[in-house]
Amino acid sequence: MCRFTLYLGPSIRLSKLLIEPEHSLIHQSVRSKERREPLNGDGFGVGWYAPRLSREPAVFHSVTPAWSDRNLRELSRVVASPCVLAHVRAATPGFGVDLANCHPFAWRRHLLMHNGYLNEFTRLRRRLLEPLCDEAFNRVRGSTDTEHVFAVFVDQLLRHEKADERAPDPALRLAERLAATLQRVLAASQAAGVQAPHYLNLAVSNGQQAVVSRFTTDPASEGDSLYVLQGQLYETTAQEFGQRAQEEREPASIVSSERLTPARAWAAVPRNHLVVLERGAAPRLLPLGAGAELAH
Amino acid sequence: MCRFTLYLGPSIRLSKLLIEPEHSLIHQSVRSKERREPLNGDGFGVGWYAPRLSREPAVFHSVTPAWSDRNLRELSRVVASPCVLAHVRAATPGFGVDLANCHPFAWRRHLLMHNGYLNEFTRLRRRLLEPLCDEAFNRVRGSTDTEHVFAVFVDQLLRHEKADERAPDPALRLAERLAATLQRVLAASQAAGVQAPHYLNLAVSNGQQAVVSRFTTDPASEGDSLYVLQGQLYETTAQEFGQRAQEEREPASIVSSERLTPARAWAAVPRNHLVVLERGAAPRLLPLGAGAELAH
Amino acid sequence: MCRFTLYLGPSIRLSKLLIEPEHSLIHQSVRSKERREPLNGDGFGVGWYAPRLSREPAVFHSVTPAWSDRNLRELSRVVASPCVLAHVRAATPGFGVDLANCHPFAWRRHLLMHNGYLNEFTRLRRRLLEPLCDEAFNRVRGSTDTEHVFAVFVDQLLRHEKADERAPDPALRLAERLAATLQRVLAASQAAGVQAPHYLNLAVSNGQQAVVSRFTTDPASEGDSLYVLQGQLYETTAQEFGQRAQEEREPASIVSSERLTPARAWAAVPRNHLVVLERGAAPRLLPLGAGAELAH
Amino acid sequence: MCRFTLYLGPSIRLSKLLIEPEHSLIHQSVRSKERREPLNGDGFGVGWYAPRLSREPAVFHSVTPAWSDRNLRELSRVVASPCVLAHVRAATPGFGVDLANCHPFAWRRHLLMHNGYLNEFTRLRRRLLEPLCDEAFNRVRGSTDTEHVFAVFVDQLLRHEKADERAPDPALRLAERLAATLQRVLAASQAAGVQAPHYLNLAVSNGQQAVVSRFTTDPASEGDSLYVLQGQLYETTAQEFGQRAQEEREPASIVSSERLTPARAWAAVPRNHLVVLERGAAPRLLPLGAGAELAH
Repeated sequence: MCRFTLYLGPSIRLSKLLIEPEHSLIHQSVRSKERREPLNGDGFGVGWYAPRLSREPAVFHSVTPAWSDRNLRELSRVVASPCVLAHVRAATPGFGVDLANCHPFAWRRHLLMHNGYLNEFTRLRRRLLEPLCDEAFNRVRGSTDTEHVFAVFVDQLLRHEKADERAPDPALRLAERLAATLQRVLAASQAAGVQAPHYLNLAVSNGQQAVVSRFTTDPASEGDSLYVLQGQLYETTAQEFGQRAQEEREPASIVSSERLTPARAWAAVPRNHLVVLERGAAPRLLPLGAGAELAH
Repeated sequence: MCRFTLYLGPSIRLSKLLIEPEHSLIHQSVRSKERREPLNGDGFGVGWYAPRLSREPAVFHSVTPAWSDRNLRELSRVVASPCVLAHVRAATPGFGVDLANCHPFAWRRHLLMHNGYLNEFTRLRRRLLEPLCDEAFNRVRGSTDTEHVFAVFVDQLLRHEKADERAPDPALRLAERLAATLQRVLAASQAAGVQAPHYLNLAVSNGQQAVVSRFTTDPASEGDSLYVLQGQLYETTAQEFGQRAQEEREPASIVSSERLTPARAWAAVPRNHLVVLERGAAPRLLPLGAGAELAH
Repeated sequence: MCRFTLYLGPSIRLSKLLIEPEHSLIHQSVRSKERREPLNGDGFGVGWYAPRLSREPAVFHSVTPAWSDRNLRELSRVVASPCVLAHVRAATPGFGVDLANCHPFAWRRHLLMHNGYLNEFTRLRRRLLEPLCDEAFNRVRGSTDTEHVFAVFVDQLLRHEKADERAPDPALRLAERLAATLQRVLAASQAAGVQAPHYLNLAVSNGQQAVVSRFTTDPASEGDSLYVLQGQLYETTAQEFGQRAQEEREPASIVSSERLTPARAWAAVPRNHLVVLERGAAPRLLPLGAGAELAH
Repeated sequence: MCRFTLYLGPSIRLSKLLIEPEHSLIHQSVRSKERREPLNGDGFGVGWYAPRLSREPAVFHSVTPAWSDRNLRELSRVVASPCVLAHVRAATPGFGVDLANCHPFAWRRHLLMHNGYLNEFTRLRRRLLEPLCDEAFNRVRGSTDTEHVFAVFVDQLLRHEKADERAPDPALRLAERLAATLQRVLAASQAAGVQAPHYLNLAVSNGQQAVVSRFTTDPASEGDSLYVLQGQLYETTAQEFGQRAQEEREPASIVSSERLTPARAWAAVPRNHLVVLERGAAPRLLPLGAGAELAH
C-alpha cells in the first residue's frame, strides 16, 4: 500500500509535483489522507524522462523516507521533465525495504509503479514467473508482488513488440498491454485458488504515453483512491523552461493516488477503469470488465 | 522531539523493551501517543552495556526508521544487557538525518540521549562551545542541539573526574553533573537573550547508574511526557539468562517518554525533576529549581 | 567473488576475527591478497549464534563497506559467540548492492555464505528454482546466484528434515546436504548446457556443526583460496568470558578465504574437498568427486 | 585524501566526466593512480549547476562507494550541466563517513571540494571557527577539516559580498577569496604551533567562474597531483544538447586530480598555484607565495 503520482505534459520542475503542492507526494509520505494507515515511509522512487539526453528514463531510488531525503529535495529543484512517475512506499509486512523493491520499476523505455497488493502473493509467485520469457524472468531482482506484475507486463510488451511498433494509437496499445497484464495476474490467482481480493492501481509509461488503472477484485471496495486532473493547475512553466508558445498551451495531465491540491478540477477515476494519457490529448477513460478485459 | 526508553536492572533481552511491549519504542516510532506529531522516523539509536566484554557501551545507529530496520530486529533478539538506552528520532527541521546526529551519544563509559529541543539553538551554539575543554569540544561531530548539550555534560564530567572517582553515592554525583549541564545551558541561553522556552528531557548513564530529567523553562508546560516504572513488569528474565536467584529478585527500573505497557505501576515523573537510578535500589526523585539547581 | 571467515569453538569476541588480526576480514575488504581484484567493498554481513538467547542465529547486513562501518566496529567489540560466519562482498557486476543480496543468508537455524560464482547464472536460474519446494522457493528475495544455491540447500534440508533429526554424526549429515546441493547445481548447469566453470566455496552452519567447500569445475584452477586452522591461535578467551576450564581447553576451528595471521598452523584446504567441523573435534577433510559426490 | 574533477564549459552529460573516460572519477574511486592508497570508497558527491532552473547548484551526496551507486549512474546519464564538481572520498581515519561530511559543500551559489588534509586538525578547529561571522559558523554541520575551511571561505565571501558584486574580473575576485582562505588557515596553523605540513588542493565555483588550488606547506612535496585540460577532448556535445554553433566552439576546461584520458593536452598544475577558469576564456595560472598570498 503506497501512494503515487504520474505527470505527463510540458516539462515541469519535479518540486512542483513532489514538494510544493499543499498535499504533495512528500506530504503524503508522512500523512496520506485516503489510506487507513497514513504513513508511507519505507523508501521512495522517482522515474523521469529526459528526452533530449536519453530515450530511457532515469530512476532515483532510496530506502530512506522521502520526507527527509536531501538528495530528493536537491534533485526536485533542478530537474524538469515532461513525464514523471513518483512513488512513496508503505512496505507490505515481510517485503524488505530494499533498493531492489523500490518503485518505479524500469525496463528499457518503460516504467511501472503500483499502489495496492496481491493477496496471498507467495501462492501466486511461481505461477506468475513460470510462463515468462527469459528476458522478463531475469528482470526480477527483488521480492515484491509489484515487480512480478511488472515482469508479466514486460513479457506482454515483448510478445507484441514488433506489432506495436507499427500500430496506430500507441496509447491504446499500452492500455491493452496493461489490461492483458491484469488478466494474466487474475488467471494465475484463479488457478492458484486464491479467493482473497487484489488491489491493483498500476501506472505505466514509455515517456510519450501513460496508462493508469484503478482496479480491484474486491466487490466491497471501490479500489484504492485515484484521481485525474487535466489542465493548467500550476502556473505556466513554459517561460521558465524556455518552451515554445505552442507547448505552453499544451495541457498537462496528472494521475495521483490523492489530490495534490484543493482544486475542483480533480476527478475521481471510477472503479475498474483505465486512464489513458497521451501528450497533447485529453485523458480517456476505458472501463475494465471483472476479468480486466478491455471493452473496446 | 523524539521518544526514548532507558532500562537499568537484571539483563534483559532488547526485544522485550523495543519490540514486544504493546506500546514499545518501535511502536512509538510509528505512532507515539503523547506528542502532537506521532511520527519518529528520522533514524534511531540503541546504546547498551556488555559488562563482561567492555566497560564502554556499544552504540548502534541508523538513519532508516526503526520500524523497518532488520538489523535492529536481529540485534534485539540476541542481545541482552543490564543497561539499555534507546531512542527514536523526529529530526528538528533543518538538522540533518545523519549518523552523526543519532542518539544516544557516547563518550567513554557514558551515554546521553534527549527528547526535546533548545529554542533558537543557532544563537546558543557558540556560547555552548566556547567554554568547553578541548576534549569535550572535539567530541562534537554533528549539528544537533543535543550533541552540544552532551559536550557540556562531558566537560562537567572531565572537570570533576578525579573527585568523582572517590566520591560516595555515584548516582548522586551523576545527577549533579546533569543538573550542572542544564544550568550551563540555561546560563548560555540567558546570556544570548533567548526568551523562547527549552525542553530538556535528558537521559544519561554510565552503565551502573542513570539519571533522567524532565525539565522545561516553559511556564505553560509540564515538559515532555516522562514515566518511571520499577518492578517485575516483564516475566522474569533470570532463568533465561542463567542469572543467580538473587539477581532475579533485583527489581528493574525503566524510564520512558511513554508507558510501554498498560500496567498501573507506571508513574509520571513530575515537572522539573530528576529520576536517579542505581542497580538494586529504588528510583529517587530529586526536584530541580527554575535554574535547574539541585535542592539537596 | 568475495572473502569469508567461519569460526566454531569457545565463545570469541567478534573483533578478534574481524578487526584485530593482521589480515582480518576487514583488512581483506580493502586489500585481499589472494584475489586478482583486492577490493571487497560491496557490503558485508556477519551471522552469529547466541545459544543462550536464541536457537536461530542473528544476522547483521550492510551495503556500506565493512572498513568504514561504525556499527560493525561497535558490535564486534561487545558481541562474543561460539559460531560466527562473516563475509565481505565484491558484487558480481550486474548483481545489485542490496541488503537482500548480502551474505550470510539465513533460514531457521542455518546460515550459508559463498565465495565464487556461477557462470552464466541467468541460464541456470530457472532450472535451480523449478524443482524447489514452496518454502525453499519463497526464501529467495534477491538476485544473487548464492541465494539460489542457498534455496537448493534449504530444499535439501527440508527433504531430509525428519531423518536428520534422529541420525548420528550430524556434521556428516550437514556435509551430505551441502554435497547434494553442489550436485544439484552441477546437474542444472549440465542440463542448461553451460560449459563455463563454476566456483563454489560455500560455508554452512547450524551453530553446532559447520561445513565448508573448496570446489570448482574449472580443471585449470585449484578453486578459490581456502584455509583451515585449528587450535589456540588467539590468546585464550576463556577467562574473558568466564568460561569453564574444560571449555577453555577446547580447540577452536577457523576456515577462511585467506589466512588471518602469519601463523604456520594454517593449512590450505585441497581442491574439491569439504572441511567438516564439530565443536570439540578436529576438522575432517572429505574429498568430493568431479560431480561433487561425497566418497564415503 | 580524495580525488576530484571540476568541469566548466558547454553543457556536458555527467557520464562523460564520471563514467565513460578510461580513467574516469568512478574509476579513480576504485583504483586511483597517483595516490599511495588507490581506494576512494568512503562516499562521494556531485554538485552541478542547472542555470535555467536555479541559480543555486544541486548537490547529490552518498555514503556508499561511487562505483556501485545506481542512482549516480542513472543521474549521470540524464543530467547535463555547464559546471560540474565531483568528488570521491577517502575519509581521513576518525572522520566519519556521514552525509554531512561529503564534498562538495554548498552555500548559496558556491561549491567547494578538497583533496588533501590539514594536519593536527583538532588543534586548529577552534581557531578556524572563532573568527567566523555567525552565518559562516552555523554553516558547519559535520566534522571534516574541509568543511571548516569552507566556512572560512564563506566568511571571506560574506566580508566582500557588496564589493565583489560590482567588481570587474569576477574570476580573479574568486581567486582572491580562495587565496585569503588559505592564508587564514595557515595563520591559524601557525598560531596553534602546528609544524606538520598541510595539503590543500581546493576547488571552488559559483557556476560561472571556478578556481582550483594546488597547494602544500610541505617543502618536500609537490602537493597532491592536479591537472588541467582545455579544449575539445570529448566529441562535441553541442549537437546532443541542441546548443548553438557558437557555444559549440567554446572550449571546455577540466581540472582534475588525475588525468581522465591519455590525451597529451593534460598539463600538470605547478606546485602552489591557482588555476583560474572562466566560461569562454583560457585557464589562467597564478602563483601563490609560501603564505598563500597572490602575487598580482
